[in-house]
Amino acid sequence: MKIDRNAPVGVFDSGVGGLTVAREIMRNLPSEKIVYFGDTARVPYGSKSKETIIRYSRQIIRFLQGQQVKAIVVACNTASAFALEEIRNELDIPILGVIEPGARVAAQETKNKRVGVIGTVGTVGTGIHEDYLRRLDQEITVIGKACPLFVPLVEEGWLHDPVTIEVASRYLRELQEKEIDTLILGCTHYPLLRSVIRQVMGDDVRLVNPAYETALELGRLLKEENLLSAGKEQEEFPYRFYVSDLAEKFKDFANSILPYDVEMTQKIDIERF
Amino acid sequence: MKIDRNAPVGVFDSGVGGLTVAREIMRNLPSEKIVYFGDTARVPYGSKSKETIIRYSRQIIRFLQGQQVKAIVVACNTASAFALEEIRNELDIPILGVIEPGARVAAQETKNKRVGVIGTVGTVGTGIHEDYLRRLDQEITVIGKACPLFVPLVEEGWLHDPVTIEVASRYLRELQEKEIDTLILGCTHYPLLRSVIRQVMGDDVRLVNPAYETALELGRLLKEENLLSAGKEQEEFPYRFYVSDLAEKFKDFANSILPYDVEMTQKIDIERF
Repeated sequence: MKIDRNAPVGVFDSGVGGLTVAREIMRNLPSEKIVYFGDTARVPYGSKSKETIIRYSRQIIRFLQGQQVKAIVVACNTASAFALEEIRNELDIPILGVIEPGARVAAQETKNKRVGVIGTVGTVGTGIHEDYLRRLDQEITVIGKACPLFVPLVEEGWLHDPVTIEVASRYLRELQEKEIDTLILGCTHYPLLRSVIRQVMGDDVRLVNPAYETALELGRLLKEENLLSAGKEQEEFPYRFYVSDLAEKFKDFANSILPYDVEMTQKIDIERF
Repeated sequence: MKIDRNAPVGVFDSGVGGLTVAREIMRNLPSEKIVYFGDTARVPYGSKSKETIIRYSRQIIRFLQGQQVKAIVVACNTASAFALEEIRNELDIPILGVIEPGARVAAQETKNKRVGVIGTVGTVGTGIHEDYLRRLDQEITVIGKACPLFVPLVEEGWLHDPVTIEVASRYLRELQEKEIDTLILGCTHYPLLRSVIRQVMGDDVRLVNPAYETALELGRLLKEENLLSAGKEQEEFPYRFYVSDLAEKFKDFANSILPYDVEMTQKIDIERF
């Protein structure tokens, strides 16, 4: 199959969190067009089963393939952890997730070989970061901690609140006691809590944001496959956004975090795919 | 159509919360059989659109009709607020929600005619409690407050935690300032936070738990329609539980709150209905 190098990149997430990944792709690969899908009718993914997340991911990939994307970024840690290996072989276009790029940088950055990972119950439960990190360096010890209240706190907008600091102190205590020197923010919402996490963990712990690393990895992958776009100048909507619910609310949130005026947001019925 | 009075009652919710309603039906109508459905693959409902919640509710009702239920209880405040009026006319069996029974008791109980309602963003946003209460008594003032962190705090198990007390103090301050004397717990999870809410609001505020009122209302309705069951003794599984995800986890939770040993829990693909 011949893939069109000027086709858009497909990016998907359970909701708005993956916009932090889309933002890094916009910044670092400005010639690339993007079709984004946020599964706002079924969000969150972090507390659901592997089987369900694989089914949801397959539906979304069928939708993105209908949009003629040239590559797919799974911009959701839970879907990357549960579904990526399953679906990779079903596709004839490149696909990448957010776990591996984050793990690779953490392995490079850690000095004391003690790496922490925070994420949803689903992501942390898989132990997938440990698998990747140990493959890169057998001496690395990984300490995972699920932080289920972080996403609701972000969605409530309590980004610098005393309650959030108290919750973070509680969740992160174990990671401090185990003296990690590197912490992977293993959920796309968590970079929005970076200042609270920094305050609790102190300046000596390196925080890894997989969104940025994933954008760089996408660039390398597209280059390798000779799929880098020649440009997006002629497109009316170089960035298109689809959701399964609440398109207007999504648009407002997207406009608050993207360096770009989001105009084209549309609701689709994802269960039909 | 002739309805079989010995058929089970269908009860549904976005997840586990509606079990607090099922529990009251078990206690107050011990002769009734129950088919419960929890939409654990798409939970929560409280932050999603009316249109989506109506679509989900229709799918669940189609499933319950396939189970030959004689009546349906919408044991979810958000689905009651968004979908009940829409779907009531599409059915030839009785259906009731949790909003009206709670509102009726609150109207009876309030002395100063100032009633508070707490619930999800979706439920509180509809203003449906106010509609019911004002229909019963035009002099009643209703003060609604969405409490989005309460469900995640319950699911984290922080039922008596200082963080939960702080969050509750923040959410409930406005209701205290407006001097309500009656508070409707307008989300099926909230009765599990009753002691924290009691601590913050003080002993003079009457807390209304719609689960109990709904069970009583169901009894009256079945009696009126001559649909009270003759008994459930011969049934192997008088209470059957279906979910759209994580059947085992659901079973554990159900067993922790129901006065009955939950044996029959099965996962179904609700999107196919």
